Amino acid sequence: MASRAHGQLNPCMKPERPLILICNDDGIEAAGILSLAAAMDGLGDIVVAAPLTEQSAVGHAITMRDPVRARPWPFRGPSGQIPAYAISGTPADCVKLAMDKLVPRKPDLVVSGINHGPNTAVNVIYSGTVSAATEAAILGIPAIAFSYCKWGGGGDFEASGRVARQIAQRTLQGGLTPGLLLNVNIPDLPYSEIKGMMITRQARSKWEESFAERTDPFNRTYYWLSGTFVNLDSGENTDVYAVENGWVSITPIQHDLTAYGAMASLEEWDWGSLD
Amino acid sequence: MASRAHGQLNPCMKPERPLILICNDDGIEAAGILSLAAAMDGLGDIVVAAPLTEQSAVGHAITMRDPVRARPWPFRGPSGQIPAYAISGTPADCVKLAMDKLVPRKPDLVVSGINHGPNTAVNVIYSGTVSAATEAAILGIPAIAFSYCKWGGGGDFEASGRVARQIAQRTLQGGLTPGLLLNVNIPDLPYSEIKGMMITRQARSKWEESFAERTDPFNRTYYWLSGTFVNLDSGENTDVYAVENGWVSITPIQHDLTAYGAMASLEEWDWGSLD
Repeated sequence: MASRAHGQLNPCMKPERPLILICNDDGIEAAGILSLAAAMDGLGDIVVAAPLTEQSAVGHAITMRDPVRARPWPFRGPSGQIPAYAISGTPADCVKLAMDKLVPRKPDLVVSGINHGPNTAVNVIYSGTVSAATEAAILGIPAIAFSYCKWGGGGDFEASGRVARQIAQRTLQGGLTPGLLLNVNIPDLPYSEIKGMMITRQARSKWEESFAERTDPFNRTYYWLSGTFVNLDSGENTDVYAVENGWVSITPIQHDLTAYGAMASLEEWDWGSLD
Repeated sequence: MASRAHGQLNPCMKPERPLILICNDDGIEAAGILSLAAAMDGLGDIVVAAPLTEQSAVGHAITMRDPVRARPWPFRGPSGQIPAYAISGTPADCVKLAMDKLVPRKPDLVVSGINHGPNTAVNVIYSGTVSAATEAAILGIPAIAFSYCKWGGGGDFEASGRVARQIAQRTLQGGLTPGLLLNVNIPDLPYSEIKGMMITRQARSKWEESFAERTDPFNRTYYWLSGTFVNLDSGENTDVYAVENGWVSITPIQHDLTAYGAMASLEEWDWGSLD
């Protein structure tokens, strides 16, 4: 079998257009995924596989103890109807199920988003948008997560869509090292005011939690997650810095969490013998 | 205020015992968390904050759109009752809520587990057990995730508990570089047959999905996640290798996902100008 990836075509076969799989975590009806599908228009064949309902902050959750369903969904792009499925699961579920059951061939690119709100710094590990792209990267497919850095509702995905198209085109041309994905954060600015693209690292940061403590109508205490984002990083090559200063942030992300730099010093620990 | 972390005590105060926070993802009634609490007995003051129900494979999910509740829970250790809370949320929620509302002072160590089943290779990113430890590491607290590498039910946590105690003691003595956590996988062997401890990296691997496709009583299709784990890594310093060969695997883990090695080559890409 000839490989169909990256233009290595069997000369007896017609060249295939790239296949682009689109996912998100805000759900299949979100404005961001419509914008992303429009941005991909003409770059290849498109399939949408996205959660039926919003799945923000699910991280890399997968559904193991319940079944997952995929419902064909009317999804209209600029050039007509796009094959689309609304899935009763997490973003990672969507990519796993699409790869196994829904796409006609192995995708050349998986794009996730456009998320409404930033996925920078420590937030990357909570992000369903990024987890969909991570799942694709694990399976060896170039993948990009896109986020539009506007908090709250509203705003305009126009500039984010144009940026997403450029980065997707460039990635389809060049491919990515297997296992890598790009985490792209786009500032909330008109396109003409964006300064350009910056390759960044995740800013060191944390959330300082301060759960709201309340009492329900039955006089029982409950808590609601709330907190303050603390940027601990004054570097000028971080994702947070880029977006705050009008640049598109492009962070290469990998899913191997090993802290290689720490292995040698841990070897030197006296672990004690097992007696 | 004097800092209470890591023995920097105010000389006017009595020295405090270390505080150890215990979490898991199998739920507060799981055998593994009882074993872990028993293993920590005498190493310090203990608080348990664990999910009310099993939360495996939730990855780093956090609960934002619903309230979270904490119910005091009767939890008995070898030396008597341990303050414990059953929490209606994910492992990451448990650590966040405990840190903000439930612990009497900043913990010196967070331990998570003992998970029933391995958390090696690519499975680390799906693991709720690891995510609890990651959450602690983000907050600057030394943290360890423990997993007992037995698939299916049953087995005996005795050896895992003894290993967990040794590693926790050593970590309390030496601390960990802020932001680091240890992901520990313990083979399913009697203690006397475990060869020792090995510092490892995550094995390169993936799951080859093959969703079961079934029809419900109402004639609608549903899918159930199923697949085959594929180890792509023949290295002899991986977590998978260690456990398969009778060693305790200790992998240092970090939560910065930036692929630093890829930044330079991406800088060289022609990203196009924003027109």
